[in-house]
Amino acid sequence: MKTINIGLVGFGTIGSGVVKVLQSRRLYLKKKTGLDIKIKWICDKDLKMKRSVKVGKKILTRSIGKVLYDPGIDIVVELVGGIHPAKDIVMEALRQGKHVVTANKALISEFGGEIFRLADELGLSVGFEASVGGGVPIIKALRESFVANRLDVIYGIVNGTSNFILSKMAEEGLSFGDALASAQGLGYAERNSYLDVSGQDSCHKLSILALLGFGISARPSIIYTEGIERIEPVDISFAKELGYALKSLAIAKKDGDALDLRVHPTLIPKSHLLANVNGVYNAIFVKGDLIGEQLFYGEGAGAAPTSSAVISDIISIASHTSGCLKLKKATFSKKEARVVEKIGEIRTKYYMRFSAVDKPGVLARVSGILGKHKISIASVTQKARKAQKIVPIVMMTHEALESDMAAALKEIDALSMMKRKTVRVRVEG
Amino acid sequence: MKTINIGLVGFGTIGSGVVKVLQSRRLYLKKKTGLDIKIKWICDKDLKMKRSVKVGKKILTRSIGKVLYDPGIDIVVELVGGIHPAKDIVMEALRQGKHVVTANKALISEFGGEIFRLADELGLSVGFEASVGGGVPIIKALRESFVANRLDVIYGIVNGTSNFILSKMAEEGLSFGDALASAQGLGYAERNSYLDVSGQDSCHKLSILALLGFGISARPSIIYTEGIERIEPVDISFAKELGYALKSLAIAKKDGDALDLRVHPTLIPKSHLLANVNGVYNAIFVKGDLIGEQLFYGEGAGAAPTSSAVISDIISIASHTSGCLKLKKATFSKKEARVVEKIGEIRTKYYMRFSAVDKPGVLARVSGILGKHKISIASVTQKARKAQKIVPIVMMTHEALESDMAAALKEIDALSMMKRKTVRVRVEG
Repeated sequence: MKTINIGLVGFGTIGSGVVKVLQSRRLYLKKKTGLDIKIKWICDKDLKMKRSVKVGKKILTRSIGKVLYDPGIDIVVELVGGIHPAKDIVMEALRQGKHVVTANKALISEFGGEIFRLADELGLSVGFEASVGGGVPIIKALRESFVANRLDVIYGIVNGTSNFILSKMAEEGLSFGDALASAQGLGYAERNSYLDVSGQDSCHKLSILALLGFGISARPSIIYTEGIERIEPVDISFAKELGYALKSLAIAKKDGDALDLRVHPTLIPKSHLLANVNGVYNAIFVKGDLIGEQLFYGEGAGAAPTSSAVISDIISIASHTSGCLKLKKATFSKKEARVVEKIGEIRTKYYMRFSAVDKPGVLARVSGILGKHKISIASVTQKARKAQKIVPIVMMTHEALESDMAAALKEIDALSMMKRKTVRVRVEG
Repeated sequence: MKTINIGLVGFGTIGSGVVKVLQSRRLYLKKKTGLDIKIKWICDKDLKMKRSVKVGKKILTRSIGKVLYDPGIDIVVELVGGIHPAKDIVMEALRQGKHVVTANKALISEFGGEIFRLADELGLSVGFEASVGGGVPIIKALRESFVANRLDVIYGIVNGTSNFILSKMAEEGLSFGDALASAQGLGYAERNSYLDVSGQDSCHKLSILALLGFGISARPSIIYTEGIERIEPVDISFAKELGYALKSLAIAKKDGDALDLRVHPTLIPKSHLLANVNGVYNAIFVKGDLIGEQLFYGEGAGAAPTSSAVISDIISIASHTSGCLKLKKATFSKKEARVVEKIGEIRTKYYMRFSAVDKPGVLARVSGILGKHKISIASVTQKARKAQKIVPIVMMTHEALESDMAAALKEIDALSMMKRKTVRVRVEG
C-alpha cells in the first residue's frame, strides 16, 4: 500500500467537499486504487469559520510554509482561487518538488504556460480537471483520450449560471434581470454575478480548452468576450420560431492556419445536442478528425462534482510514479498557429432584429445597405406591428465578415427610420 | 525521447487504421508526448490481402511467436477480435511481461476478470478503451475520472447499428426489415447482423461497463438480452405521441444490494438527452453521487474513432513507467453485490399495445386481469379502428414487477378477443 500525503490549501466550500470525500471514502479508495490518500495539512487563513466537515485540529494551519516546506507532502491541492497568492503557492510547491492539483481556472488560463513549463522541467504533474466543466472529464479527454486527433472545433456551454438564466428566459419569457434574480434566489448565481454573465468565466475556460485542444496559449484578455446581459426574451422566442436555441457559447474553431476564439450569445439549430442542454448543466462539443463529433454533458459546478474532479486528479498523479500524462512544452507553445485576435476577421452567419418605424421602403433600404457590404440575406420575417408603430423585422444572413456586418449596422442604425439599436446574434452549427 | 515498440496482432480494418495514424503522426505524437511509438511487428495470418496502408515487408509476419517472444516489444496490440486465439495471445503477452491494448469486447466481457488478475499480479497494464463506445472515452472516465464516486446508474446506447435502424424506423416509418436493409446498403450493418440487432453486442459492452462502474464481474450469458427484431414502426409512433422515443438500451442500475443488468428496447422520455441520440451514434448516461448526471456522446464504431481509442491507450501506458491506472483485484471481484439474474425480479414501467377485436368489454377484461396481478394503469388510449376490426389499445403502466407482468400477459393473450400477441416495451427515465 502506497501512502500519498496531501497538503490542501484553501478550506472553503470546495476544500470542505474534497476533505469530506477523502475522509469518508478512504477505505473505498484504498481498495479500488491501492493508494492510501492521507490529508496531512489543511491550510486556510480563517480557521474559525464553520465548515461542513470535522477535521483534527493538529492538521489545521494558517501557515502556508507548513505545507510547502514539509518534505512529506507529495501533492499540494490548491483551492484558494484567483491569481494572488494562488500563483505563488503553486510555483513554490513545484519548486519544492511537489505535484499540484488545482481547480483554479483564472490561474491556469492566465499562467498555465509558465506553470506547465516549470512542472515539465522538474518532472512534476499539474492536474486541473476541476477548472473546466466541474465533474465532466473534458480535460483528461483532451489531454489523453484525443491525443492522436487533430481537432477542428470545440464549442462549450461552460458557465452554468448563464445557461440557467437563458433557459429560464426561454421557458418562462422572463427578462434578463428577472431570470438573474431567480438564479440568485436559488443559489445558482452569486450576489456579484459579473464574472458569470459577462462571459469572463467562460473566457477563462475557453483559454484552457484552446491550450489543450489546439496547443495555443491565448490569454483571456485577447479573447473576444460578449456577455448575455443585453439578451431580450423576444429574441429567444423569434429564434425558437426559426428553429434555433440561444446559448452562451465558448467557441474555439480552426480557421485555416489561425484559431478563432470567442465567447458570445449564439444561435444553434434545435437539432444540435447543445441546443437541448438546459439549466445549470454544462456541455462541451468536440470535433476531431479521428473521433468525429463528441459531446460531454454534466454538472459544471458545485462542491460534489468539483471534488470528484479534484480527487480523480490526485489519484491519477498518485498512481503513477511519473505523474499524469505530461504536458510537453511543445503542446502549449505552438508557434505556427495564430489566434484570430480581431473579432472583425471572423466569418459567421447572423440573426438580426431591426426595430423600424412602420413606413414603406424600410426593407428596401436595409437590404440595400447589407448588399453594399457584401452581406447576403437568407430569410426575412416581418413581425406583427406593435401599438408603438415599431415593426420588428427579423433577418437571418448567410456567412459574412464581421467587420462588414459592423459597418453595415453602423449605417443602418443611423437611419432615421430605425427606432432602436439593431440586435444581432451570431449563429453556429 | 523514450521509444516504445509495438507488436500489432490483427491487420484488418482497425489494425490498418491504427497503423495509418501511427505512421502519419509519428512526429506529431513525438512532439506532444515525448514518446516515439514504433511499430516493430505486424502479425496477421493473411499477408496478401490488400490494405489501405503501406508498410515495410520486414515488419510483417505470420508468426505470432515473433511478436510474443521478442524481448524488445513493450506493448502488444490485439486487434484479432473474438475469443480464440485472442485470449491465448493476450495471456501469453502478459506472461512475457508485455502490456496489452485491445479493442476486443467479447474477450474482455467474457474473460476480463482473468486477464486483469494476471496483469495486476505481474504489474502490467491492459488498455481496452476501444471495446465500448469507439472513440468515446467512457472506459477512462469510469476507471479514472469517476473513481471517487458511487454510481447509481449507467444507461447506454452502445450499438450504432441498432440505433441507426430504430432511428430510420422512427423517421421514415420503415419496417425493421427495410430499415435493416438500408443499414446494410449504407455499410452500417454487416451482412450477418445477428450480434448487433439481437442485443448481444450491447450485452458484451454492458458487462464491461458493469465491471468498471460497479465492480461486478457478470458474464454476458447471465445478462437478460432482448433484440430489436420484433419492434414495429406503429409502436415507435404511438410512443412518440405519448412523449417517448424508443431506443435499445444497455442498462446497469443499482437495485438495493443487487445490480440490475439488462439490454432491451426501451421507451425514454423525449426530454431525456438519450432520446435525441440518433443514427449510428452512441451515448452513455452515467449517474453518480458526486458527479450527478453525465452524458458521453460520439461515434461508437469505425476505423478512425477506434484507432483514436487504441492509440490513446498505447500512449497512456507508454507515458507511465507504471502503466495506466491499475484495475486492482478489489475492483472486479466484489462479493457483496449480486446481479439480478432473473428478469422476473425487476420492477419497471411498461408500454403495452393490445390487438383486440372490436367488442364492448375488452378494456374491462384487460384491466381486470392487470389489477389482479397488481399492475396499475397510468394511461390508456384506444386508437382508431382499422378495416380488419382490430382495435389497438395502447396502455402505459406504473411500476410493476416483471413476473407479475408476464403472468398477466399470459392470461390476456389467451383471451379469445385478443387477435395478436400483446406488444410490451419497458420504460426508463
